[in-house]
Amino acid sequence: MNKSVIRYVLGSIMKTEAVLLLLPCIVAVIYRETEGIYYLITGVICGIPGVLMTRKKPEDFVFHLKEGCAATALSWIVISFFGCLPFMMTGEIPAFHDAMFETISGFTTTGASILSDVEALSYTSLFWRSFTHWIGGMGVLVFLLAIIPLSGGSNINLMRAESPGPSVGKLVPKMRYTARILYIIYFIMTMIQIILLVIGDKPLFDSITTSFGTAGTGGFGIKNDSMMSCTPYQQWVVTIFMILFGVNFNAYYFILLKNVKKALAMEEVRGYFIIILAATGIVFVNILDMSEGVFDALRHALFQVASIITTTGFATVDFNLWSETARTVLVLLMFIGACAGSTGGGIKVSRFIVMIKAVAKELNAYIHPKSIKKIKMDGKPVENDVIRSINVYICTFFIIFAVSVFAVSLEGKDMVTTFTAVATAINNVGPGLELVGPTQNFGGFTPFSKVVLMFDMLAGRLELFPLLIMFNPLMWKEVLGRKKKAELPATQK
Amino acid sequence: MNKSVIRYVLGSIMKTEAVLLLLPCIVAVIYRETEGIYYLITGVICGIPGVLMTRKKPEDFVFHLKEGCAATALSWIVISFFGCLPFMMTGEIPAFHDAMFETISGFTTTGASILSDVEALSYTSLFWRSFTHWIGGMGVLVFLLAIIPLSGGSNINLMRAESPGPSVGKLVPKMRYTARILYIIYFIMTMIQIILLVIGDKPLFDSITTSFGTAGTGGFGIKNDSMMSCTPYQQWVVTIFMILFGVNFNAYYFILLKNVKKALAMEEVRGYFIIILAATGIVFVNILDMSEGVFDALRHALFQVASIITTTGFATVDFNLWSETARTVLVLLMFIGACAGSTGGGIKVSRFIVMIKAVAKELNAYIHPKSIKKIKMDGKPVENDVIRSINVYICTFFIIFAVSVFAVSLEGKDMVTTFTAVATAINNVGPGLELVGPTQNFGGFTPFSKVVLMFDMLAGRLELFPLLIMFNPLMWKEVLGRKKKAELPATQK
Repeated sequence: MNKSVIRYVLGSIMKTEAVLLLLPCIVAVIYRETEGIYYLITGVICGIPGVLMTRKKPEDFVFHLKEGCAATALSWIVISFFGCLPFMMTGEIPAFHDAMFETISGFTTTGASILSDVEALSYTSLFWRSFTHWIGGMGVLVFLLAIIPLSGGSNINLMRAESPGPSVGKLVPKMRYTARILYIIYFIMTMIQIILLVIGDKPLFDSITTSFGTAGTGGFGIKNDSMMSCTPYQQWVVTIFMILFGVNFNAYYFILLKNVKKALAMEEVRGYFIIILAATGIVFVNILDMSEGVFDALRHALFQVASIITTTGFATVDFNLWSETARTVLVLLMFIGACAGSTGGGIKVSRFIVMIKAVAKELNAYIHPKSIKKIKMDGKPVENDVIRSINVYICTFFIIFAVSVFAVSLEGKDMVTTFTAVATAINNVGPGLELVGPTQNFGGFTPFSKVVLMFDMLAGRLELFPLLIMFNPLMWKEVLGRKKKAELPATQK
Repeated sequence: MNKSVIRYVLGSIMKTEAVLLLLPCIVAVIYRETEGIYYLITGVICGIPGVLMTRKKPEDFVFHLKEGCAATALSWIVISFFGCLPFMMTGEIPAFHDAMFETISGFTTTGASILSDVEALSYTSLFWRSFTHWIGGMGVLVFLLAIIPLSGGSNINLMRAESPGPSVGKLVPKMRYTARILYIIYFIMTMIQIILLVIGDKPLFDSITTSFGTAGTGGFGIKNDSMMSCTPYQQWVVTIFMILFGVNFNAYYFILLKNVKKALAMEEVRGYFIIILAATGIVFVNILDMSEGVFDALRHALFQVASIITTTGFATVDFNLWSETARTVLVLLMFIGACAGSTGGGIKVSRFIVMIKAVAKELNAYIHPKSIKKIKMDGKPVENDVIRSINVYICTFFIIFAVSVFAVSLEGKDMVTTFTAVATAINNVGPGLELVGPTQNFGGFTPFSKVVLMFDMLAGRLELFPLLIMFNPLMWKEVLGRKKKAELPATQK
């Protein structure tokens, strides 16, 4: 176990967070709010140990998968810990478990809130809250990779542990440039959305925070009614950008390379759009008679479908009041989630496509047992190892899901609340149904349930394993044991 | 495709059913009920074509997996079709879709009923209804294998398609003797239960039908209140036998061979008992304050836990009124199900054990990537092919589950009803929660939902694939296509 490299990564993360905390300070200056001082203090609190931890460079920068996982899991816990301090210091969210819940919900781009009155927050805190979505959307370590010359080892293991989806594609041979390209696309798209919202008469502050929530597929709103009081134009802009941020970013890279054909041919992207269309159609038919006309129904149907499948979680209506069919469709969409390689959560469309192909292959094998056709994705054969890891992922997912539902059920809330609260947490969506519906919040849960849901949010965002291996005794044996000298360097894939 | 052997199996099944239909006729004679005549008529209706279809023996008895699946799926549909005719003729269940629902629910040992007043049925029909559980519990084709000299080909493919669990173990080299041993154990255990119930002052008719429902882990009661009005002694007898029938029958075979140690060492059996104990403990604590003392709470907790995990579905209390925690535990138990190689349904304990081991292996692989430890079960390594097929099973299960929940949600019942109705059908349990709770019935669903649930019951009982391949176009190409001469004989495993 290369502990010094983990220490170095954590130190770098803390330094980075100290710098990022300056942004809400600027907001505080603009709005003349005293809350800014606490963000400055937090920046100092996490910046100083960060500097100390990175003074001594590690002997080697070799990253095995275990170091990648440990660094990722710890980084996310560390940024959430420091990120929640200002909420406590300002007194806006006094209890530690609540502040931690809100911050983890932010960084994991879940968007589930324990606040019943969001509008009571200062601009400074509202900004930080939405900004955590933007940071967490593309990934904090990807950000690190993009700006810090950490390179030297096989840091794809760092990215692999953090990036959503069954397989990590490098856009270009060097990880660092891949990370930079991703962040540039991310930044430009966010800017375009801000501009379009400002054009649509949304105040600049609202436009920025809304765009942060959309880009990270987070879903924290700055109004108590989420997006309900927005104009149809603003809702359409958000709808389109939610869908765009749920697309596999590789598609945008192909478009940048002027290979639009290749982008459109991606099976996952096609599947994603087909699911959106089908779900919107079903919801549209179901809510038509409770809407004000066809266009109203279409806008609400597409908005909610896009919001849930991309796991953003904004709402233009209280879909908790919709028909059971429409509600069921939304719950199913939570599990499907967005594309791999996007900022969205859920199980991911590509995993479902591979799963369905595996089932079809099995059915064909019953009839032609000697056929040895490989499962293909985008024309390329899918390695057995990828299929196996997807299968293990699905099994792990449902085991964690079942255990969490049981744990949250201990406090005796109704079954739909319990079920959707866990579903919305582990899939990083935000709102669920009934007591956690879009007009409700998570403040009513016991601290124990909140801890379970925090675990689920982190597990969902980090794709289960990086967090789970922290509970593996073998891992702790490695961490606590003496450093082995014979450790082999990781082979760069 | 060896169509003649499928025809021969179907004919044999129909002849068998014709004979089995004589039993309710005897009941009718005893109770002097005119309903018996319709059972006799049905026997003739299915017996004559059965005789005609088996007059010409097939050229070869070779069974590939596809013929095994097709024969199994068609057999179950055929016996359900003929089995439902008496209900319609007697006018007790006039509508075809209702009668078919009740019969499929019987043969698949689900025990979900569309009847609101069970006690209005004739003794003859009550007997037949419970008897379908007993036939379906061990499997109709296993029965066929046990009594008819079908042998000559690789009829393990027939048994593999029907037997619950990830892998089919032959107890003895000849399938036919394996099937006989299973049926003898099954018969003797049923007899013991009948005797114990009769000793406990339960009328003979009630004892027989209750034991049929217990042995097949079915759950059709002959009283409207299921088991609520039974004496504690009778409830304890049923509890113990439900648990016993949920055990892998291989364990009993080991005990017969006086190898008790080997039976007790079976990991699946241990896991099964641990889950029962844990779940009973949790439910016990949760219902203690609404029960009449400790023993009352213990009896109800263990009865309901045993009833649900073995997917029987009897009830001694209306557990729909229990706390959310207890209800959630029961819903989770539905999915776990009993042991493979038992008469119970659900996903099966052994699949979960392998799944959990696969997840643990994956977690260890993150830390020691070069480790090549194999997953073991009962000391023997589990083949990768078995793990793969379990994974595909789980994925297929949840895909069917999700599609069914969506389909049933179309009629707009509340989410808990919809969710548990599908869960209880696909896991062959019987009762669910809310509108399909233990004091309710399935009569309120639309014919469309009933068809979906019938599909789920069959899919669950036949372990998904034998039924699913009937929807595979490749299969129909085989069925409709000309017979290929170059077809290779199946290799016996």
